[in-house]
Amino acid sequence: MQLALSTWQEVETYLGHSTGIVIPIGSTEQHGPNGLIGTDAICPSRIASGMAEKQPLLIAPTISYGMSQHHMAFAGTITLRPSTLIRVVIDIVTSLHRHGFTHFYFINGHGGNIAPVTTAFSEIYAAIEGHPSHPLCCRLANWWRNDAITTLARELYGDAEGYHATVSEVALSYFAHPEAVKQVSMQPEVAPVGEIYHAADFREKFPDGRIGSNPALATVEDGERFYQLAVDALAEDYRHFISHGAQ
Amino acid sequence: MQLALSTWQEVETYLGHSTGIVIPIGSTEQHGPNGLIGTDAICPSRIASGMAEKQPLLIAPTISYGMSQHHMAFAGTITLRPSTLIRVVIDIVTSLHRHGFTHFYFINGHGGNIAPVTTAFSEIYAAIEGHPSHPLCCRLANWWRNDAITTLARELYGDAEGYHATVSEVALSYFAHPEAVKQVSMQPEVAPVGEIYHAADFREKFPDGRIGSNPALATVEDGERFYQLAVDALAEDYRHFISHGAQ
Amino acid sequence: MQLALSTWQEVETYLGHSTGIVIPIGSTEQHGPNGLIGTDAICPSRIASGMAEKQPLLIAPTISYGMSQHHMAFAGTITLRPSTLIRVVIDIVTSLHRHGFTHFYFINGHGGNIAPVTTAFSEIYAAIEGHPSHPLCCRLANWWRNDAITTLARELYGDAEGYHATVSEVALSYFAHPEAVKQVSMQPEVAPVGEIYHAADFREKFPDGRIGSNPALATVEDGERFYQLAVDALAEDYRHFISHGAQ
Amino acid sequence: MQLALSTWQEVETYLGHSTGIVIPIGSTEQHGPNGLIGTDAICPSRIASGMAEKQPLLIAPTISYGMSQHHMAFAGTITLRPSTLIRVVIDIVTSLHRHGFTHFYFINGHGGNIAPVTTAFSEIYAAIEGHPSHPLCCRLANWWRNDAITTLARELYGDAEGYHATVSEVALSYFAHPEAVKQVSMQPEVAPVGEIYHAADFREKFPDGRIGSNPALATVEDGERFYQLAVDALAEDYRHFISHGAQ
Amino acid sequence: MQLALSTWQEVETYLGHSTGIVIPIGSTEQHGPNGLIGTDAICPSRIASGMAEKQPLLIAPTISYGMSQHHMAFAGTITLRPSTLIRVVIDIVTSLHRHGFTHFYFINGHGGNIAPVTTAFSEIYAAIEGHPSHPLCCRLANWWRNDAITTLARELYGDAEGYHATVSEVALSYFAHPEAVKQVSMQPEVAPVGEIYHAADFREKFPDGRIGSNPALATVEDGERFYQLAVDALAEDYRHFISHGAQ
Amino acid sequence: MQLALSTWQEVETYLGHSTGIVIPIGSTEQHGPNGLIGTDAICPSRIASGMAEKQPLLIAPTISYGMSQHHMAFAGTITLRPSTLIRVVIDIVTSLHRHGFTHFYFINGHGGNIAPVTTAFSEIYAAIEGHPSHPLCCRLANWWRNDAITTLARELYGDAEGYHATVSEVALSYFAHPEAVKQVSMQPEVAPVGEIYHAADFREKFPDGRIGSNPALATVEDGERFYQLAVDALAEDYRHFISHGAQ
Ligand code: NI
Ligand code: NI
Ligand code: NI
Ligand code: NI
Ligand code: NI
Ligand code: NI
Repeated sequence: MQLALSTWQEVETYLGHSTGIVIPIGSTEQHGPNGLIGTDAICPSRIASGMAEKQPLLIAPTISYGMSQHHMAFAGTITLRPSTLIRVVIDIVTSLHRHGFTHFYFINGHGGNIAPVTTAFSEIYAAIEGHPSHPLCCRLANWWRNDAITTLARELYGDAEGYHATVSEVALSYFAHPEAVKQVSMQPEVAPVGEIYHAADFREKFPDGRIGSNPALATVEDGERFYQLAVDALAEDYRHFISHGAQ
Repeated sequence: MQLALSTWQEVETYLGHSTGIVIPIGSTEQHGPNGLIGTDAICPSRIASGMAEKQPLLIAPTISYGMSQHHMAFAGTITLRPSTLIRVVIDIVTSLHRHGFTHFYFINGHGGNIAPVTTAFSEIYAAIEGHPSHPLCCRLANWWRNDAITTLARELYGDAEGYHATVSEVALSYFAHPEAVKQVSMQPEVAPVGEIYHAADFREKFPDGRIGSNPALATVEDGERFYQLAVDALAEDYRHFISHGAQ
Repeated sequence: MQLALSTWQEVETYLGHSTGIVIPIGSTEQHGPNGLIGTDAICPSRIASGMAEKQPLLIAPTISYGMSQHHMAFAGTITLRPSTLIRVVIDIVTSLHRHGFTHFYFINGHGGNIAPVTTAFSEIYAAIEGHPSHPLCCRLANWWRNDAITTLARELYGDAEGYHATVSEVALSYFAHPEAVKQVSMQPEVAPVGEIYHAADFREKFPDGRIGSNPALATVEDGERFYQLAVDALAEDYRHFISHGAQ
Repeated sequence: MQLALSTWQEVETYLGHSTGIVIPIGSTEQHGPNGLIGTDAICPSRIASGMAEKQPLLIAPTISYGMSQHHMAFAGTITLRPSTLIRVVIDIVTSLHRHGFTHFYFINGHGGNIAPVTTAFSEIYAAIEGHPSHPLCCRLANWWRNDAITTLARELYGDAEGYHATVSEVALSYFAHPEAVKQVSMQPEVAPVGEIYHAADFREKFPDGRIGSNPALATVEDGERFYQLAVDALAEDYRHFISHGAQ
Repeated sequence: MQLALSTWQEVETYLGHSTGIVIPIGSTEQHGPNGLIGTDAICPSRIASGMAEKQPLLIAPTISYGMSQHHMAFAGTITLRPSTLIRVVIDIVTSLHRHGFTHFYFINGHGGNIAPVTTAFSEIYAAIEGHPSHPLCCRLANWWRNDAITTLARELYGDAEGYHATVSEVALSYFAHPEAVKQVSMQPEVAPVGEIYHAADFREKFPDGRIGSNPALATVEDGERFYQLAVDALAEDYRHFISHGAQ
Repeated sequence: MQLALSTWQEVETYLGHSTGIVIPIGSTEQHGPNGLIGTDAICPSRIASGMAEKQPLLIAPTISYGMSQHHMAFAGTITLRPSTLIRVVIDIVTSLHRHGFTHFYFINGHGGNIAPVTTAFSEIYAAIEGHPSHPLCCRLANWWRNDAITTLARELYGDAEGYHATVSEVALSYFAHPEAVKQVSMQPEVAPVGEIYHAADFREKFPDGRIGSNPALATVEDGERFYQLAVDALAEDYRHFISHGAQ
């Protein structure tokens, strides 16, 4: 059930059964020579939709812009300052909390969001302190960080899975948008690895945007496998969160 | 050309031909008994896609969350504080400006965004002051505020077009998402009108969320007519903006 | 009754009869070759005083600094960042609300203030949400936007009324400050018109600061007529607001 | 020369002779049973006008709202949060600095402004750091803190001069606004003294708003004497500042 | 009793006896050719420890970074923006207030902190307004501003005590850290005096960082005398504050 | 070399040899029944001192207050809002950067700081973007997250090492402050484990503040072993950072 395609009365009805909500969050940033700039938003959006096919749940509009400061040396990357993203997350949770939602499950597609989003959670918890009658609890689920995904990625690609513009995320985005599959030859096949500091340094170390990956290996078929695994893993995690999260 | 489905190299190529970009912006708020919570984001997104079929242009991901404070007494409404929305707009424009974009054309679906978005434009202009070598210019196009749209709406619905959850916007959203058309009976047929102050007052005056409209009249067919008119009007306005905006 | 010339006990007495207050707001910005930099503050201050002669009402000190970013290419213009002006309005309303005031009637002299001030109203409404026992309601009355004023201006000056440094506002400021009337010859007689973007662009398009007007036509006598019309129109609007605004 | 009554071309001419500007700053707060809520704004405004009669100088519009948190338990007091006032001062100085002003002379009427205004100066200095080609320098002149004023006050009133709603400031405001002189009997004649903490504590300790003063002694005649002394002292201090301030 | 060396249960026990706490605050800034960059933090920390030997009191960790904008032209100086320092003070007081502390006694070592810290107090008082059940009260004690200290300094050094990098503060820091005593010859013996504006101006007027002092006179023995006097004076002031501050 | 015990000329001399600096950062929060509230600040401070004995390096004053929102249900915990901590880190780095420092090595003692501090790094990188002539690079070293430490902890305590108020950190703080060793009996011996959400939930799940640990096992002797391992590991990491970090 997409919030964007519902009416307010339908949301009221939903709240009679559940006070949990799923919020996909991604970024708008370069993903190497054949990866889509929207990859990190596309993957969690698609996974959320898959979860909703298995159980009744409400999905908020995807937060398409994330914290991508370190990718700013590549055209098309858009970054929110971390402080802006923090406020966006606070405002969304606060608004929904007023309507009675209590469990906020963010499906994240981008590592750079982790620090600001968990920071926002702390600010949110601070704001409700001393109001014990209105508990709420937030969780950030990074879809690519679970055993099923990492095991399959290692099995299929070994070290060529990489760290940014990974094969698995490019594959999943291709599954979601087969019309946007790109054939690009890459030099070198597998991208270099290294520490991430500021944007200019990033571009110098990783000139085509990839870190450690060979996303030329990505296929729609593999993408579907990652998708299925992510849906299963997160659906279970969501059920657990709804029933065992903090009250 | 959707930014989310492009690679960074494709954006670089685009920048060789044009430094303009289209950014749809909407809201996540109640739209009465049969209107979609995502109406204000759905309409500009769909219009932008239509414009891109007529001329090569780049479309940024839709800003799905807007300033909807006055709708907060209805379940499912999510509002960014105005100050948050201002920062979101600043960050998006600033990021793209660094890559060389100069003309930022926002297609807006929600009246409540006008004040914060134009406020953001002033902040952006202030920030570039004294850097004459990097001009930029921003425009907010409210899709429903042009002669073609208002004439057709008056012709089709007279006063029942209304001011919030209007027939035209519900129709356009139904054209974009025919799978989400809702049949709901409304009492009274045409909603009341009045001044808007704070959220509780809004709910008291407009108990089902509509202002002055009878969106039961909305059809997919009408929606397509509004869509075509909006695409034509904004495409021309965009061309004018790109070639005559401030340098 | 001017707040600045009252004692706190007199304010307590006033609160026994009325919880409404009038707050003039203007700007400090260029108004062309013969218009005063304080025009936008002078007009609402004078109108407010006129209203107070007709009915008992309390007038707060004028907010003399507004959002004038687009005029910054002309010497003497002072602008608050929009975010600053938003906070000023929030703080003033919040302070008065604590003393029991509930109806805040801003008389505005400057178009550039509309976006930030209405944005401030949204922030204020958000802050009181959930505290139904302390209602408040805010209104921004732009003195030049009412039928009486626009009709007279068209009658007297036709298109030469213009959009910035208009004949009517210069005339009204001359009525308020006849000692400051300036005789300046203008080239061309009627200033050009066009879209407003950033400050440098403004100066290039409108080199002497006027938009579409011929303020050489302004006289003290005309100013008095505009003044009388504005006082009548806003006094009625204020009475309506006090008795019919949101509770 | 009042900025509000000048045109932008007149400001340009002024800048050819001087890059100094005088900015009166006050507050809107209770001043005891017979003191005006606008006292702290009225005094520096009047003194600035007096200085301008002796030498050519430009006076910006008075900042009428100050930091008056500790007076908030008395009706009619309006306070800007300190952080708001800081931004107001920054924005005013920054705007004028762009036009070429370099010496900013604030005449202050209110002790509570000292901390936020000097804080703003530090923020301003931090912002220009590393731009040695655009020096600027700010000074806060508290009109009541100079030997001439304190000597006369002690001579006339002894200890009854007090610390808030002092006889000298009430007298000076009466000189500026003789139409607003109030006759109020006070109990006790001389108000108590003590430490200032939060607003509720202030009201408890100083129930009618005065600290240590007997402003029933204030007369228009005394007010004129204080006015003359303040004009002389600050005019000299301003000349010294303009010629010896930091470059 | 140092908070940093206590457990949370020990703090609970302490709160059973007292709700006062001492918070040393200093800076990290140049103190001339032989003064320590940490002088302003070292002095109040050492004094607080001395006070704790005389009476049971809890000492929070020292705030080592202060507002030192005007010293930024000297290597090693670190400044918090005033707005940052304000937030630090607010957060510390707010946190402790939640645990039941009511009297916050800051021992300050740096004049530049006075404006931002007292500004923070106003923000704190504003935040608790209307919550009379949770009173709190804050005090800033500048250790060097009391009769005992100034009398001894004048007696020992006359005018050579100075205004920054004073002999007394250097002496007290040497008493606290005899291992860090520095022998440096100074030219001229006694530093110049003057007004403080921005950082570059400061360096030009006071090229080695001192204002008006000859800290070559500082000795560990003198430092101990200042230390004893400060401990006595502030211990008494603290006792008075705890029992007579606002409720 | 402690910055606090140096003069500004000594810092200038240091900058001739190295532009790196070490900044310990901790927190002020409960650490269970026998752990010190200052544990997270004490450990990195002590480790930094140890590193300085092996190689010449400059140590800034410890940031003693961190982000400890989730510990706020225990007396004595002080938290900076994440947004405040972000600004503190930005201001410190920015100040030092102006003096010529380029490599900022934070030694962190507290997991809750990771999100805000890395967020601050992103904001810092964003601010320098486009100023390639002034590179800088930041690194956050969490002392307890390296193979040597985790291996020894597992060897000595197995699972009783835990996740908060761990045996290793309590031991290291005891080594640094043997005078503060506490003997407290704990029930149960090993604390429970679980997910961390808001502060009230934390206290309910972990009633004495520990997570998964048995810090009764901590000894000064073990503390010294952890200290030596941490000093060795971080000294090497620092050398690598200084010579291989981004330029
Ligand atoms: Ni990605
Ligand atoms: Ni709509
Ligand atoms: Ni105007
Ligand atoms: Ni006063
Ligand atoms: Ni000092
Ligand atoms: Ni710890």
